[in-house]
Amino acid sequence: MKLNDLVNHSSEWLKGSGPNSDIVISSRIRLARNLDKIPFPHWANKKQSEGVLNAITEAAGKVDYLKSTATFNLADLDSVDKQFLIERHLMSYEHGQRANHKAVIIDNEEILAIMINEEDHIRMQVMQSGFNLFEAWNIIDKIDDCLAKELNFAFLADWGYLTACPTNTGTGMRGSAMLHLPALVMTTQISRVLAAISKLSFTTRGLYGEGTQATGNFFQVSNQVSLGHSEGDIIENINGLIRRIIEQESQAREMMLSRNRAVLEDRINRSFGILKSAHIITSQETIELLSMVRLGCDLGMIKDLDRRTINELFIITQPAHLQKIENKKLSSQERDVKRAELIRSRLKI
Amino acid sequence: MKLNDLVNHSSEWLKGSGPNSDIVISSRIRLARNLDKIPFPHWANKKQSEGVLNAITEAAGKVDYLKSTATFNLADLDSVDKQFLIERHLMSYEHGQRANHKAVIIDNEEILAIMINEEDHIRMQVMQSGFNLFEAWNIIDKIDDCLAKELNFAFLADWGYLTACPTNTGTGMRGSAMLHLPALVMTTQISRVLAAISKLSFTTRGLYGEGTQATGNFFQVSNQVSLGHSEGDIIENINGLIRRIIEQESQAREMMLSRNRAVLEDRINRSFGILKSAHIITSQETIELLSMVRLGCDLGMIKDLDRRTINELFIITQPAHLQKIENKKLSSQERDVKRAELIRSRLKI
Repeated sequence: MKLNDLVNHSSEWLKGSGPNSDIVISSRIRLARNLDKIPFPHWANKKQSEGVLNAITEAAGKVDYLKSTATFNLADLDSVDKQFLIERHLMSYEHGQRANHKAVIIDNEEILAIMINEEDHIRMQVMQSGFNLFEAWNIIDKIDDCLAKELNFAFLADWGYLTACPTNTGTGMRGSAMLHLPALVMTTQISRVLAAISKLSFTTRGLYGEGTQATGNFFQVSNQVSLGHSEGDIIENINGLIRRIIEQESQAREMMLSRNRAVLEDRINRSFGILKSAHIITSQETIELLSMVRLGCDLGMIKDLDRRTINELFIITQPAHLQKIENKKLSSQERDVKRAELIRSRLKI
Repeated sequence: MKLNDLVNHSSEWLKGSGPNSDIVISSRIRLARNLDKIPFPHWANKKQSEGVLNAITEAAGKVDYLKSTATFNLADLDSVDKQFLIERHLMSYEHGQRANHKAVIIDNEEILAIMINEEDHIRMQVMQSGFNLFEAWNIIDKIDDCLAKELNFAFLADWGYLTACPTNTGTGMRGSAMLHLPALVMTTQISRVLAAISKLSFTTRGLYGEGTQATGNFFQVSNQVSLGHSEGDIIENINGLIRRIIEQESQAREMMLSRNRAVLEDRINRSFGILKSAHIITSQETIELLSMVRLGCDLGMIKDLDRRTINELFIITQPAHLQKIENKKLSSQERDVKRAELIRSRLKI
């Protein structure tokens, strides 16, 4: 698999299927692991980092589960390639900085991504479409077990897995779900919901993880604490929280339908109309309009358009994706024109 | 002909044909006439007004040219009917106020309208599609001659026709053209053009004549002076001015096409997209979006849609028209929904 093969490939987590996929875009489990007796990436010297990279890629090569994967050494990627992987949620923005001895391992279905020498030696994630944290956990747990047979992870009986940042110590696990909450935003109930989430020791982030703002009504909810609870308990906890948010979003949708159906229909159809006809459009406006169109599909107001097409448009209309599709550097203005072109061609019903 | 027959009827001046009809919606000549020795409407008593109404309708009945006309006594019309006639440009807003002994005579094609007992005893207008003032003049001149044989018009050799307001004395004539000047507005050249028009003793008004503002890039240009020049000279004068405005609008369109084609395409197509998909829309937004769509047709960016459909939409989406079409009173909110419905059905290509 080459990086360019991904351009026209549709990730597993974009399928738009799975439980509650009207509200939950995707579920994700990530584990942080470090090799014993070797400094964490930010403190390791070049030789140590190189050793870590080699040890992990070698170990991964021996794991059956990881047979259909490709390893991308970040030193071989240009800035568009790196941005492309970030846009696909296959690596973090931070991982793209200072590329020494960093890599990312990705499987064919883009279910799994393993970042090597990010904040920890290993940051691996498994993503699933819809509300499916346990399935994601089952997959990543097996991969973790296999890697643990090949590598010596830093682990203390009293503390659990050791990590560069103490907030990850313990299970090293973070479970998160990407939620689409347009009705809670439109009915202005979202601030109350976000306040409750934060009181319960969970965090909310935007589309691209830490430090990014919520756009187009998308919110990534994840656990803050990974110490003192088993993985199962943590997932159960976050599952319960997400189930409650789903209920509230569903109720808000019902309320809007019964009280403001015409206003909602207008907003959704206008959004669809603009997407189908614009000739210049920014990323920001695209996300906001697609958010309304997704809601329109969920509510049955927009027919003949499947969730997968909408999910894919969210991804492929991003700057690096447009440049990969066009196979050349594009200025911001050129991208706005190409983006509009791409959206029109995909939405031609 | 009944008033309701007009609801699904398309006025001659909406055809969207005639010279320069990409920029000139319609041309209009109106004449003010008063009966000799009878006070102007605002000073006449009831008996005198009634006499005027009877004399004029009787005279009109004898004129061959006016055979296919209907006379609507304003006392018989409700507020929606009156608003409906105003929206079709068949009478003035002022004419609808205090309905005593007022009437309007309209021909089948809506080329001619004669208001009785407005500001003057007779205010007659002839409208033509496109840039066609001389044709409008030819028609109205003949009707005026015929009426003059039946009625004794107030006329002084030194002054010409006498009118209630001195600005109309002389020829009693006003020539005007409804212009669509989106490119001059978008390139912000319009203020310079309007200033020049006013220096040359012409006036600019909005869609509904005196006291109304320009909306959706529509400007009605007419002569201010009707005394001291022959009708032919006045028309020649206004014709020359309008020809210059047409040139400037054409140049502005060319300039935008060569410098900002993508921006223009975006704006035009978005406007079309919103009109085709909105479920709630105000009059104001409708006019603004239709203005862009009309420009799109003129520039060949929007195909499969003729100017007549757009011109008709300008008229039938107005409040009284919607209520006539639905045959019931509608609140402003209900109209916004019905308007969107009507537009969607007409623009379904």
